[in-house]
Amino acid sequence: MLSSITREVLMTKTRVLTGITTTGIPHLGNYVGAIRPAIRASKEENTEPFFFLADLHALIKAQDPKRVAESRLDIAATWLALGLDTDNAVFYRQSDVPEITELLWLLSCVCAKGLMNRAHAYKAAVADNDAAGSPDPDRGVTMGLFSYPTLMAADILMFKANRVPVGRDQIQHLEMARDIAGRFNHIYKGDYFVMPEAEVDTRVQQLNGLDGRKMSKSYNNTIPLFCTEKQLLKLIRKIKTNSLEPGEPKETEGCSLFQLYSAFATDDQIADMQQAYADGIGWGDAKNRIFELLNETLKEPRQRYHELLEDPAHIESIMKKGAERARAEAVPFMDELRRAVGIAPFA
Amino acid sequence: MLSSITREVLMTKTRVLTGITTTGIPHLGNYVGAIRPAIRASKEENTEPFFFLADLHALIKAQDPKRVAESRLDIAATWLALGLDTDNAVFYRQSDVPEITELLWLLSCVCAKGLMNRAHAYKAAVADNDAAGSPDPDRGVTMGLFSYPTLMAADILMFKANRVPVGRDQIQHLEMARDIAGRFNHIYKGDYFVMPEAEVDTRVQQLNGLDGRKMSKSYNNTIPLFCTEKQLLKLIRKIKTNSLEPGEPKETEGCSLFQLYSAFATDDQIADMQQAYADGIGWGDAKNRIFELLNETLKEPRQRYHELLEDPAHIESIMKKGAERARAEAVPFMDELRRAVGIAPFA
Repeated sequence: MLSSITREVLMTKTRVLTGITTTGIPHLGNYVGAIRPAIRASKEENTEPFFFLADLHALIKAQDPKRVAESRLDIAATWLALGLDTDNAVFYRQSDVPEITELLWLLSCVCAKGLMNRAHAYKAAVADNDAAGSPDPDRGVTMGLFSYPTLMAADILMFKANRVPVGRDQIQHLEMARDIAGRFNHIYKGDYFVMPEAEVDTRVQQLNGLDGRKMSKSYNNTIPLFCTEKQLLKLIRKIKTNSLEPGEPKETEGCSLFQLYSAFATDDQIADMQQAYADGIGWGDAKNRIFELLNETLKEPRQRYHELLEDPAHIESIMKKGAERARAEAVPFMDELRRAVGIAPFA
Repeated sequence: MLSSITREVLMTKTRVLTGITTTGIPHLGNYVGAIRPAIRASKEENTEPFFFLADLHALIKAQDPKRVAESRLDIAATWLALGLDTDNAVFYRQSDVPEITELLWLLSCVCAKGLMNRAHAYKAAVADNDAAGSPDPDRGVTMGLFSYPTLMAADILMFKANRVPVGRDQIQHLEMARDIAGRFNHIYKGDYFVMPEAEVDTRVQQLNGLDGRKMSKSYNNTIPLFCTEKQLLKLIRKIKTNSLEPGEPKETEGCSLFQLYSAFATDDQIADMQQAYADGIGWGDAKNRIFELLNETLKEPRQRYHELLEDPAHIESIMKKGAERARAEAVPFMDELRRAVGIAPFA
């Protein structure tokens, strides 16, 4: 018990833990909605941010090793190129911390199966099977998919995260992590785990994709964050607009182009663009201005990104350093938990 | 692929893997039925035996840390005292090989949930709930219990075991391990896992307990393997017999005392005892002879057992050595498997 009291006194910083899924290549929507705010958060002095590449989670959905490997490297390079502060933030790969799967097992032994039965992702899979008329409700469901909230609980509880920024669809998983933590603390009579709080940011910036729907890999309407200048221009030109001619005043409200511009512009630039819309700027001109602003913003990180990708050994050394910092927490904590459940060394 | 071909050529010894549950204190029935044959097997030159204390499995059933810890130490001391050959056999604690839970996750991602739905232990729990009229079929079922065959698959597949000695109730788990191994090999296009064979020994020696039923902790009718001399005599005297008087000829067939004696006696001793039964030996005399034989056999290992228990640091060093040997296999194999699924180091 003493150890947790000491911890509380010493820990003045808030631990914020964020998992990054590694099953794709980041696009502008990911950048604006998730990466940029996270990188800003990585520099906050009063927080101790933990960012991890959730590559064990990725294996649930992605069974193409080449795709998993590429995405992992790409995302690491992206975050570093964008200026993630790896001195303040602990940046690591989930798979580099074997204590996480050890904890997964300890948690599995106190986690009710009924809890997992009620997880959204699992229930959605069962509903899909039902809709497709499958006689087997578990068709295509792996144990990975089914037990995924338990792994997420291990991710969070291992590092005693105080806050976990999540989308609405993940609130349930946080509740499950709290439930599992509470059970373990109760059964083993101690305050081993910190109760994590979900932090739902309702102001998450979304971007529309090329077709006007939300930018999303599953709609195939994305603009990759670090595509070439030429490709960036080409894709911005493909963004769907209405058929108003140059000279006709245009609405900014609900306009994908304006939304994209605003996500990168200063207040002054936004005001100027609003005026240009009112003055009837042509879509071609508007697209050129957007390209210029985005390209200006992305040029430097894009350059760094390509340099990083050419030096995977450098990225590896950064990840190793992050894993060391993460394990400096995880190793002694797992020792404490081993003692708690009765599987400590004999002497 | 080359690595597995080389392996096949080099591996002339058969790998035999046995898990030892760590939720109790060994009794004479465990000794005769499981421990003694396993220790004999540990000395076979043409096999490479792996014995592990299944302490992660123990957590499914035992949530009393003191009991788990005591049982683990007691069982390690017991096996060592009885002469387990730890030069030939690899003797380790499951929880000392973190690669096992890492592999558990990799296997979970290819293992159909439907497979676990059909596991005997889980189905028995559901049937019990049903019989008790519980509206929740999963009442009291943890994720540990539900996913336990996946952990068992990881135990077996990690060490490329060729043979796994099992009771009839475990045959299904071996089939599941083979199923999961086959799926992984198929998805990731390689012969990563060796297909383990269940080895069902139908000649397993059983002992009756004090009340004539099978000796079993759950019947509370056991004689501890390493109880004191006094307690051993007392318990043997408590073994239930019929009411035949001294001088009346007695049947050896179906007699718990004769069965117990035979489990420890030479053929000559057995023949002598058969004669004594025919000659009408009194139950008291028979019990004294049994006590003498058992005590003679157990005296030395009992002495070693107590010495070992007084030196847990020595047992710890033996377990550490075993863990090192086990991890010398597990660490490079997990590296290979990480590459296979796409989560290898970047450089």
